[in-house]
Amino acid sequence: MGIYEKQVPDVVIKRLPRYYRYLSELLKMDIKRISSGALSQKMNVTASQIRQDFNYFGGFGQQGYGYNVEYLHSTIGEILGVKNGNTAIIIGAGNLGRALANHDSIGKRGFTILAMFDNNPSIIGEEVNSTKIYDVEELESFISENRVDVAIIAIPKNHVQEVATRVINAGVKGILNFAYTEIKTDKKVAIENVHITDSLMTLSYKLNLERTEY
Amino acid sequence: MGIYEKQVPDVVIKRLPRYYRYLSELLKMDIKRISSGALSQKMNVTASQIRQDFNYFGGFGQQGYGYNVEYLHSTIGEILGVKNGNTAIIIGAGNLGRALANHDSIGKRGFTILAMFDNNPSIIGEEVNSTKIYDVEELESFISENRVDVAIIAIPKNHVQEVATRVINAGVKGILNFAYTEIKTDKKVAIENVHITDSLMTLSYKLNLERTEY
Repeated sequence: MGIYEKQVPDVVIKRLPRYYRYLSELLKMDIKRISSGALSQKMNVTASQIRQDFNYFGGFGQQGYGYNVEYLHSTIGEILGVKNGNTAIIIGAGNLGRALANHDSIGKRGFTILAMFDNNPSIIGEEVNSTKIYDVEELESFISENRVDVAIIAIPKNHVQEVATRVINAGVKGILNFAYTEIKTDKKVAIENVHITDSLMTLSYKLNLERTEY
Repeated sequence: MGIYEKQVPDVVIKRLPRYYRYLSELLKMDIKRISSGALSQKMNVTASQIRQDFNYFGGFGQQGYGYNVEYLHSTIGEILGVKNGNTAIIIGAGNLGRALANHDSIGKRGFTILAMFDNNPSIIGEEVNSTKIYDVEELESFISENRVDVAIIAIPKNHVQEVATRVINAGVKGILNFAYTEIKTDKKVAIENVHITDSLMTLSYKLNLERTEY
């Protein structure tokens, strides 16, 4: 394809979902073209940064006319694998797990949630947004019988490593971890950690700055 | 203080919570000093990037000996305003709001959650992790009677702008928004958007890369 020739830095990869999200909004507003300048204002990234980012994937378009929104959206979607039909399970059917199961943006980003797992007998068998909660004891058998690409882990941190090791051994290729703990493995598996309160700290920084400014 | 002399780029600010988090872990492990090299390996950032980041705040220490973990932790904590005693309310007592109310890392990062708000009469008056759920109609009166620094918004996106405008008018200084919609305001207020599924897209990208590699 040529698209993956260069090693793309992590910071650039992490901006792709934002581009994709914003382009989805432009599409909804029926906007056909956008300049890197306009895109940059919206995204709070410099225009040259955007051009630099896009150059990793071949550039994406004529600068004088701006970018074709539909083309850019579908190409970035392709790079992100939105149409790959990824599958996921959610481990932990507490508030966070349920919030995720109810989160329609997971489906919009090409993921199908196959099942949820919990160790609380009183909720096993329940359904959340049409997704059934299974006993966590069934993790391995479920993964061996279904193609599970990603395990979304939303359980207390003291159990995260154990559960992560189990799903990795069972063949899951990616993990989305919501606990504030680092997952260790010597297997080749993609791990992303979501730190929900990091943005709260950024806010705290900005409030602090305000207070010290006058 | 001198600490805030330079305009610190957003990307650097966004890395501070990660440094803070990681340094908290080192402290727990009773590690006294760390080199920028070791820090860099753990954080997946180059050592020169770390030095560059820290230079915005005066450097933080002797390179030959590495950084003093306790000093670095407390200074970054100070920059992030961890000890300012920030206050927050959570708007939306659904699964996500409840997950946040139960999230002990919010407290660890210096925030006290004063109240939750919802429009569902059947849950008003309930408590989540000792935080009471109020009728959303009481938003303005609550904010006028209590110092509320930050409103954490965890409601469906079609109501986000309206509620955001209300809390901003009532005097809140920061908003943490979990909905996939942009909040518009002409007031000076710090807004951070948390996009829970962006990391899922990064995972998707990595899985896609794997598939196309062989």
